[in-house]
Amino acid sequence: MSLSNTALAERPRGTGPKPTSLHDRLLETRRLSLTLAQPLSDEDQVVQANDDSSPTKWHLAHTTWFFETFVLPRYLPGFHLFNESFAYCFNSYYETVGPRQPRPKRGMLTRPTAAEVRAYRAHVDEALDRLFDRDLPSEAKAFIELGINHEQQHQELLLTDILSLFASCPLMPAYRNAKPGVPASDPGPLAWSSFDGGILKVGHDGDGFAYDNEGPRHEQITHPFKLANRCVTNQEWIDFIKDDGYASAALWLADGWSTIQSKGWQGPAYFEKSEDGYLQMSLNGHRPVDLAAPIAHVSFYEADAFARWAGYRLPSEFEWEVASQSLPVEGHTLGADHLQPMAAKTGDSLSQMFGDVWEWTASAYLPYPGFNASPGGVGEYNGKFMCNQMVLKGGSCATPDGHIRRSYRNFLYPHQRWQFTGFRLAGNA
Amino acid sequence: MSLSNTALAERPRGTGPKPTSLHDRLLETRRLSLTLAQPLSDEDQVVQANDDSSPTKWHLAHTTWFFETFVLPRYLPGFHLFNESFAYCFNSYYETVGPRQPRPKRGMLTRPTAAEVRAYRAHVDEALDRLFDRDLPSEAKAFIELGINHEQQHQELLLTDILSLFASCPLMPAYRNAKPGVPASDPGPLAWSSFDGGILKVGHDGDGFAYDNEGPRHEQITHPFKLANRCVTNQEWIDFIKDDGYASAALWLADGWSTIQSKGWQGPAYFEKSEDGYLQMSLNGHRPVDLAAPIAHVSFYEADAFARWAGYRLPSEFEWEVASQSLPVEGHTLGADHLQPMAAKTGDSLSQMFGDVWEWTASAYLPYPGFNASPGGVGEYNGKFMCNQMVLKGGSCATPDGHIRRSYRNFLYPHQRWQFTGFRLAGNA
Amino acid sequence: MSLSNTALAERPRGTGPKPTSLHDRLLETRRLSLTLAQPLSDEDQVVQANDDSSPTKWHLAHTTWFFETFVLPRYLPGFHLFNESFAYCFNSYYETVGPRQPRPKRGMLTRPTAAEVRAYRAHVDEALDRLFDRDLPSEAKAFIELGINHEQQHQELLLTDILSLFASCPLMPAYRNAKPGVPASDPGPLAWSSFDGGILKVGHDGDGFAYDNEGPRHEQITHPFKLANRCVTNQEWIDFIKDDGYASAALWLADGWSTIQSKGWQGPAYFEKSEDGYLQMSLNGHRPVDLAAPIAHVSFYEADAFARWAGYRLPSEFEWEVASQSLPVEGHTLGADHLQPMAAKTGDSLSQMFGDVWEWTASAYLPYPGFNASPGGVGEYNGKFMCNQMVLKGGSCATPDGHIRRSYRNFLYPHQRWQFTGFRLAGNA
Amino acid sequence: MSLSNTALAERPRGTGPKPTSLHDRLLETRRLSLTLAQPLSDEDQVVQANDDSSPTKWHLAHTTWFFETFVLPRYLPGFHLFNESFAYCFNSYYETVGPRQPRPKRGMLTRPTAAEVRAYRAHVDEALDRLFDRDLPSEAKAFIELGINHEQQHQELLLTDILSLFASCPLMPAYRNAKPGVPASDPGPLAWSSFDGGILKVGHDGDGFAYDNEGPRHEQITHPFKLANRCVTNQEWIDFIKDDGYASAALWLADGWSTIQSKGWQGPAYFEKSEDGYLQMSLNGHRPVDLAAPIAHVSFYEADAFARWAGYRLPSEFEWEVASQSLPVEGHTLGADHLQPMAAKTGDSLSQMFGDVWEWTASAYLPYPGFNASPGGVGEYNGKFMCNQMVLKGGSCATPDGHIRRSYRNFLYPHQRWQFTGFRLAGNA
Repeated sequence: MSLSNTALAERPRGTGPKPTSLHDRLLETRRLSLTLAQPLSDEDQVVQANDDSSPTKWHLAHTTWFFETFVLPRYLPGFHLFNESFAYCFNSYYETVGPRQPRPKRGMLTRPTAAEVRAYRAHVDEALDRLFDRDLPSEAKAFIELGINHEQQHQELLLTDILSLFASCPLMPAYRNAKPGVPASDPGPLAWSSFDGGILKVGHDGDGFAYDNEGPRHEQITHPFKLANRCVTNQEWIDFIKDDGYASAALWLADGWSTIQSKGWQGPAYFEKSEDGYLQMSLNGHRPVDLAAPIAHVSFYEADAFARWAGYRLPSEFEWEVASQSLPVEGHTLGADHLQPMAAKTGDSLSQMFGDVWEWTASAYLPYPGFNASPGGVGEYNGKFMCNQMVLKGGSCATPDGHIRRSYRNFLYPHQRWQFTGFRLAGNA
Repeated sequence: MSLSNTALAERPRGTGPKPTSLHDRLLETRRLSLTLAQPLSDEDQVVQANDDSSPTKWHLAHTTWFFETFVLPRYLPGFHLFNESFAYCFNSYYETVGPRQPRPKRGMLTRPTAAEVRAYRAHVDEALDRLFDRDLPSEAKAFIELGINHEQQHQELLLTDILSLFASCPLMPAYRNAKPGVPASDPGPLAWSSFDGGILKVGHDGDGFAYDNEGPRHEQITHPFKLANRCVTNQEWIDFIKDDGYASAALWLADGWSTIQSKGWQGPAYFEKSEDGYLQMSLNGHRPVDLAAPIAHVSFYEADAFARWAGYRLPSEFEWEVASQSLPVEGHTLGADHLQPMAAKTGDSLSQMFGDVWEWTASAYLPYPGFNASPGGVGEYNGKFMCNQMVLKGGSCATPDGHIRRSYRNFLYPHQRWQFTGFRLAGNA
Repeated sequence: MSLSNTALAERPRGTGPKPTSLHDRLLETRRLSLTLAQPLSDEDQVVQANDDSSPTKWHLAHTTWFFETFVLPRYLPGFHLFNESFAYCFNSYYETVGPRQPRPKRGMLTRPTAAEVRAYRAHVDEALDRLFDRDLPSEAKAFIELGINHEQQHQELLLTDILSLFASCPLMPAYRNAKPGVPASDPGPLAWSSFDGGILKVGHDGDGFAYDNEGPRHEQITHPFKLANRCVTNQEWIDFIKDDGYASAALWLADGWSTIQSKGWQGPAYFEKSEDGYLQMSLNGHRPVDLAAPIAHVSFYEADAFARWAGYRLPSEFEWEVASQSLPVEGHTLGADHLQPMAAKTGDSLSQMFGDVWEWTASAYLPYPGFNASPGGVGEYNGKFMCNQMVLKGGSCATPDGHIRRSYRNFLYPHQRWQFTGFRLAGNA
Repeated sequence: MSLSNTALAERPRGTGPKPTSLHDRLLETRRLSLTLAQPLSDEDQVVQANDDSSPTKWHLAHTTWFFETFVLPRYLPGFHLFNESFAYCFNSYYETVGPRQPRPKRGMLTRPTAAEVRAYRAHVDEALDRLFDRDLPSEAKAFIELGINHEQQHQELLLTDILSLFASCPLMPAYRNAKPGVPASDPGPLAWSSFDGGILKVGHDGDGFAYDNEGPRHEQITHPFKLANRCVTNQEWIDFIKDDGYASAALWLADGWSTIQSKGWQGPAYFEKSEDGYLQMSLNGHRPVDLAAPIAHVSFYEADAFARWAGYRLPSEFEWEVASQSLPVEGHTLGADHLQPMAAKTGDSLSQMFGDVWEWTASAYLPYPGFNASPGGVGEYNGKFMCNQMVLKGGSCATPDGHIRRSYRNFLYPHQRWQFTGFRLAGNA
């Protein structure tokens, strides 16, 4: 089946009216997870492709466990656990909640079966529904909001993890039978937008939901800078490869150089050189690379080396956030239903900031001044990862609609590249 | 469903009339593989528990690929491959046949699906059936015979690999709902059978099928020896644990000692100490250890250390074979439908030689004098593993009926223990 | 022999007149390296303790290679290389200069011998001396200045690497026969200094030598904060251990927790619990821990966990630098000749900022706004390490006098702890 | 200095009168170890090249510890240990004697210094000398004999370990300034010696010293076989390389194939292809390969693959022993002072059986029927290694004169090749 025929496509591309009540958004989010799993057999859903990724079934169960652990026992009198052993199976990393299946062993969980996990979801969904029969305390609402956002993150992971799995399969299956691709027009040469800098506020302004790591909102000094109007493209990346980018030590951070040596990388993940040019494995199948589309599946190390090669640098997270302030939060996110990055529109103005690919920044993922992790189990959500990772901004073609924000801080280790990770260039103005 | 209700149990315990024609035996073998997979969901069948084991689905497909590669294209005019890409997916280690999915990545094959693999089996089975419409050259019959025996080996692996998988699952599911266990009577103290030794013939005598590694039949000098009437039991193993067997360096081979240190072994695989005694994960579920039954899932290193602790040694493969000569080739193999080792009968005479557990010997797995591997791809079947492994004799509770022989040489690395591996003691007479 | 009897001690503790001419400082630095190697046998000088550290002999040769590569061929007509093969042996990581002995194999260099390395040093020293016969271009002076600072860094490494080696030797030899220790008086309870914050300049102000990574000088917003008057002490660390600090997951960054699990850390490097309290291996031998002295040899992860346990945090590199502005750059550095951290003076005012231990900060090691690496080989000095590491400030008991600056940015991976690494607490004011 | 000028060369090539008294042999052996260490600086003596090899200094100390542990305290009243901590430093693997410096950390022992180790040797030598003032019980003599043989083994290791170290050094130093090489005459085409086989006695016959693993003497059936008159040469090995030997999976044992893949082997250890042919690192320096000399530094896997390529096989240890029965135990061992394998004499008769290179056999290293390890600590000498290793026969150019026997069983893991390991071909007659 094609996702295009599903609930995902029932709404026009991210522009129509969105569900506004918490209850409706919860229902939609819970439903979307199942929709995303629909093109997959139960077999596809059980296997773990590698230590970075998790089985589909595990994502479906873990997001359910989140509500079962942090919401239902507190706010729904008489709620009973679906199965006591599931807590062990589906806790991810919450040390304060209890022991858990080791992360690299999530793929051993052939039991509970996918069918049981669907029953688990139904059990918890029914209980969540009952929750709304009464007036919910605001704390409960906050947990539900967090649960929705948490599940949206796992929806993106579900897709990138399946891509990872299917790329490891010799048959290179497509996640879906793709719509005929619209031939992308070349976005044209790079143009730049300049920004004055100054003492500017960054971080979440308190309006609506945000993760704890997006605040406190605070001032940052930003020096005058310029930002590319679009992301670096596949064509530009191929130029970098052809100019011996992967063989020129001087372009690379020391850790980047040793990473590409030890892993034998000669190009982005899922890239493959063929006689007729480059092919790329995608959720829409194994296909020729779309040269005009943004590069994806590069690590921070590769992005950084490319920028040095090009004579530029990556933007800081603050530069990116400041530049995004004048733009609407819209773009090719999951609802656009491309499932792969699309070429930017022609034109010199700043575009493609949201959706398509997560954009690596030059900023280490660190706490903002005055940051305090939330108390209790959910306090493990973000804070404990604030070391050794880099910030990414803007969301990707796999990010659920409505999930992304200007202040959103995604974070990955600099060697990781199984997600839709690209970047845009920056420079001093 | 319980295996007890299946084809497996339709025949009395390995004593009734067996199919004798090649055609019938082929059919039965092909059918048994599906029967063994029946209690498993498609999800259970796709996951690879570890590098030593393979997914059920892979076993089902690989055994089919064997016929498709070595038999059908040569002897069935007009045969067409089911799917050309399957050769890559399901070749195991035949370098001369072509490249293949790396062994530790067999679990990535969510595609082809289990259903497609079943269709693949049907396609090949139908072709195999057609083969018998005509007179087959003896070479073809030899390949089919090899294919049957090959598939039987994978039937045993299918079971031990599933045990390995289910033991890694926190829910510890049973492969089947077990029959009520017959309380085992204690087999009584060890007794010994003595043998004179001399210059004796060993190896396959040429009557019926045998692997190339069982010959040439040749003379071996055997010194007077004695052999225990039964295998070492779980109770005896617990005595060894309690006597600090796993902490006494002097009992161990150097490689054995470093293995148990680095792996942290304090007991056999699937053993677990509880407040009420020892539990063991089995195909019949997670249960109290049957003290009278033979120990299983010990490595060669552990068997060797136990023997030293007990003041004895392991038998050589020749001693074992010589001792077995007077006994019928029967015991608790797969058809007995226990799926776990059973206690030996009371009495002093040599028993339990066939079935229950593979018995580690003191013999390295080496070619017999004059051994030559078969030419062509099937020549990779046995010979290329003749280094670093030890010989095991006698078959186990998971070995298909009719598969085992006195001259049969199984071989494993000395640290492996995911199969039903036990042993019996020997001494100089 | 005791270092106390050497050139090191010929000057009073870091307060007297220092050599001011470039020539004199070069001579003194070159001499100090040999002085530091003097207590060591040639055997001590050749062995590499682990991948993080290098042999003494390698340090002696590499610092010489630096002058031979970047200074002499350009500015001394007629200079000839001592031995052409030494470039391969003693290049550290300069990809643009050529291939080199792999870092983990520096300990294989039993040849050239220590005596040949000393001859190499004499050859290069003589040539360096001749350089000053003529007027040097300022570029040459800049390279010499860099070479001096480079060699000072290796002097510190020489000492920490020897400590690492001697701690791996069962005899636990002392680097020197220590002076009788002055019993440390307890520095008393922690006191705090408060700072207003604001928009403040940080980075090197251009007066005198600095590394490229200390600039450009630029403005940073600093929020009101407070800083502990001294470093965390051994006594306080033992309190943390006793309060189950190493067993409380909630205190740790995720990467920190997995590091202490996989390495089995239960305390700082070189710490050992004995019946009479804690012992510590030091350059002065294996001795009881000085409870009043600052903790050393802890990783960033441990420092961060301690701070969380104590209810505080680590300072940012900018907070530290701002706080240091009013203080003279002096303390227990190498010239103080303690070779281990000493207790802070009693009193509430900010102390111990320079010397004793490098202080971990909460800042990732990243380029300052507008940073550009120097062109050519020396451009690899700092910039290529700007990922995955954390900034440390203030110098240690092994840092050569005159080497440290307020703007100095040392950097280490968060798991490293073989250097004299400690920290002080900070908080929001 | 050249070994040629030393005690080693004071006697003609292994043919002259040898010391016969135990006392004299002890003295000579103890002296030879120091002689072998003489060309090495103290730096050369402290470094450990890899996990398989040990520092020279460690060999000198460990062989001394052996006498100090197993001989002196029992038979020399009033003997006192030189230094109590040395037992920890210099025990190799005797679990029953006590804890010890971990094997891969032997290179950390810069202390005790080489000078202290020499003093240790002198202390123990003086005590050993005093032992002979009185009548020694035969048990003491047996331990001394064992100690002599033990030290001889370490003399060979000392040389092979130094070769390993110097081959890791970019300067590729020679262990000694070699004598001008005698141009080797081509040994001519392979010839074969045939043997009838039969029931023949093998193992040590009890006359003179032997290790426990050489007995009990027992009968073996040997089938008619033929043995090559000389070892495989470097020229023949180069033919194998040129015929794609290292790229032909069908020639290799499965474990061998995966070994050469993972290690990237394309030739023997210390081999290097240059524009003018092959070079080889040797104790006599880095030199062109002597094409007529036997191949050395190949693993069992490589020897086995070569034999398959050539259409032959390796001999069993019994075939080798039986064939050697008619030959005197003499050849190019250490006393011949070549320190590298020499070409066989021209002629068809069986030659080169002793000395030059250890010859891999097809036999796994297993206990002989009736083998029992000696009681006590020395019982760990041989028995505990009887798994996963292969038997080698005949001694090498680094084996001390008088050390080798027909029944001698050396053993190595099949991937090891840092010793002088070669082989000769065998076939069925």
